[in-house]
Amino acid sequence: MSEAFDAVDVIIAKRDKRELSDEQIRWVIDAYTRGVVAEEQMSALNMAVLLNGMTRREIATWTDAMIKSGERMDFSSLKNPTADKHSTGGVGDKITLPLAPLVAVFGVAVPQLSGRGLGHTGGTLDKLESIRGWQAGMSNEAMLAQLDDVGAVICAAGSGLAPADKKLYALRDVTGTVEAIPLIASSIMSKKIAEGTGALVLDVKVGSGAFMKNIDDARELARTMVDLGTDAGVKTVALLTDMSTPLGLTAGNAIEVRESVEVLSGGGPADVVELTVRLAEEMLEAAGKGGQDVRAALQDGRALDAWNRMIRAQGGDPEAPMAVAKHNEQILAERDGFVTAMDAYAVGVAAWRLGAGRARKEDPVQAGAGVEIHRKPGDPVRKGEPILTLLTDTPDRFERAKEALAGGIQIGDAAPNPTPVVLDRIS
Amino acid sequence: MSEAFDAVDVIIAKRDKRELSDEQIRWVIDAYTRGVVAEEQMSALNMAVLLNGMTRREIATWTDAMIKSGERMDFSSLKNPTADKHSTGGVGDKITLPLAPLVAVFGVAVPQLSGRGLGHTGGTLDKLESIRGWQAGMSNEAMLAQLDDVGAVICAAGSGLAPADKKLYALRDVTGTVEAIPLIASSIMSKKIAEGTGALVLDVKVGSGAFMKNIDDARELARTMVDLGTDAGVKTVALLTDMSTPLGLTAGNAIEVRESVEVLSGGGPADVVELTVRLAEEMLEAAGKGGQDVRAALQDGRALDAWNRMIRAQGGDPEAPMAVAKHNEQILAERDGFVTAMDAYAVGVAAWRLGAGRARKEDPVQAGAGVEIHRKPGDPVRKGEPILTLLTDTPDRFERAKEALAGGIQIGDAAPNPTPVVLDRIS
Repeated sequence: MSEAFDAVDVIIAKRDKRELSDEQIRWVIDAYTRGVVAEEQMSALNMAVLLNGMTRREIATWTDAMIKSGERMDFSSLKNPTADKHSTGGVGDKITLPLAPLVAVFGVAVPQLSGRGLGHTGGTLDKLESIRGWQAGMSNEAMLAQLDDVGAVICAAGSGLAPADKKLYALRDVTGTVEAIPLIASSIMSKKIAEGTGALVLDVKVGSGAFMKNIDDARELARTMVDLGTDAGVKTVALLTDMSTPLGLTAGNAIEVRESVEVLSGGGPADVVELTVRLAEEMLEAAGKGGQDVRAALQDGRALDAWNRMIRAQGGDPEAPMAVAKHNEQILAERDGFVTAMDAYAVGVAAWRLGAGRARKEDPVQAGAGVEIHRKPGDPVRKGEPILTLLTDTPDRFERAKEALAGGIQIGDAAPNPTPVVLDRIS
Repeated sequence: MSEAFDAVDVIIAKRDKRELSDEQIRWVIDAYTRGVVAEEQMSALNMAVLLNGMTRREIATWTDAMIKSGERMDFSSLKNPTADKHSTGGVGDKITLPLAPLVAVFGVAVPQLSGRGLGHTGGTLDKLESIRGWQAGMSNEAMLAQLDDVGAVICAAGSGLAPADKKLYALRDVTGTVEAIPLIASSIMSKKIAEGTGALVLDVKVGSGAFMKNIDDARELARTMVDLGTDAGVKTVALLTDMSTPLGLTAGNAIEVRESVEVLSGGGPADVVELTVRLAEEMLEAAGKGGQDVRAALQDGRALDAWNRMIRAQGGDPEAPMAVAKHNEQILAERDGFVTAMDAYAVGVAAWRLGAGRARKEDPVQAGAGVEIHRKPGDPVRKGEPILTLLTDTPDRFERAKEALAGGIQIGDAAPNPTPVVLDRIS
């Protein structure tokens, strides 16, 4: 069959800063999926997109073409409206765990298709897999049934959604073209739109531990994604949130589940509670059920009850004892004063090296590994008091974890000005 | 063996407009030649180079790394100094044919490693192969012997020179990254420097029929190549020459040989004579033998004698009758007036479609095909007089050749201002 376009012409158009037509974009994504556009051609096009950008229309068409490369899910048969949350990833970001059951309490179904961690940010499925018996995989039918019955599902995304994105992401990873806002936005949103959620709240992280290091880039990414969602008929809102320091007091797998259960039981660190409540309010509002007292459900056991039912529905035992790391080592304060900085990236890399994360897709993770945080920025500390506890089953990992932390924690004479959790809102 | 660098880091550095180190450049060219850097990675790097550029030092190292990917030739054993000429390619550009023997007359050896044509510009080897018996291929030893004996060789470049460039050029061709000045310059110069010539004159064509459409790009390319040659110890000069209209009165294979012999016999079109003489003077000057009466050698038979010896040394019969196309068709003037424009690209594509050029490397060419020009810009013409004669062995090609010419020839009321052949000189 003769092709509608020549890949070289499409590459040259973008290289020379011309706007691609809808037909060119739909052809190039389809032809790439079919293998007619070669990897080296798509790679050149990606670099041209990264350096020359795409218009709102181009990004929308690109995203839609990726959606059309695969199947779409349909939640229209559910009794309740749906709302989903996506985080661009951060250190100690366990928010999905308390958030999904909390929102479900208020009659909004939460279909949370999640991934495993790669690099210094943990994966939601890795965390939940530290619960005895819990299963990440499920059929579409089982998912729909659980959404009607429990109201919340956190499970592995099937391979049928946006296969073009899967192929493209693997290529971008090896060709230095991950950091292109149009490509990041279309990658995230193609999967979220294909998933069929009615409402979507984006948590776009900003800071050393996040993909976006500065707020201008984060705002542009948030704006691009909100526009894409809105154009596709999904009620979409984004919060820009701080990731200069880890979220909460844990970065790992089992220890993040434990902290999530604390939040669901009415306790937990203030920043985790605040962000969970704020995102829940946004999801309920976007799903048409705003104006409810979300915090009350954390205090009175309704959210914890939803959590327990959600975990059990996927084979997990919420009462079973959690994994505990075999070895631990403390990082002590070297002077009196106040913690002035705790670098999220440094803590994330330390947790990763301790065994909480993986370097390659096929590596296992340790359920008990990670970093417990005893003092956060703003907290007073005395010389010799513990700031962090490092946890691992394999003590030869302590050394490289400590190398990652070098210079990442600073103690000064005065408490720093507090950083708000939510930096901005884009709708 | 573990690698010194990660391809993604090198790509990201150039993507983010950082200067690559010598070590990074040498590694990436070597690792690409070895297949460790994948095609899709080199493709992304090429696009980043095209859009973000390279410094003079980066281009010099890139070129040197390509030279080191293969073998180098050595002309130091020859009795005479060497000078080479490279043209960036144009329509009707047969200058190499009269130029090489002309320069040889004056005791400068001319090793002219040439290629076949692809697309609308003809190939020097294709033209010479229309001479009965002439062979393009020869061993290094035979080449050296001919350079000492006859003083000029035009032959096929061996595959041992700059193999990295060969691989890279094939990749650039399919990924929209041909038009990058640093990559064009390093591709040309790596082969010329590896070839081992002592002096090099570059003919950088500007205009519709050339690779460089405007003089600023041509000047930048010329400057980049002159710097590369100079830095590598090759005495290098560039002329920027006009390619808005074809050079001479022929575009094809046998007909360009015929025109070249006319020039070597003291006749021929003024523009071909002027450019041949000018380039010969530059080559002799660069080789340390300037200040001689070059035109005299065209008038008194010395250049033609050198030509006959050069052709015979490679098996050709300079007396044998040349191929004549089986069919011809004339393009007539539609009105009285002066030819005001004859687009080089249009004539080049017409000659190509008539069979003088090839669309794919493995296609044959027709020796007799091409375009004869009867009136050039500035010439008066009367309605019904022939402007061009189209030549081919396969008359079904006339129609598409005429389509290529549509709008390419203009007749007005007054003669246009003449365009000089040589537009600028860079040294």
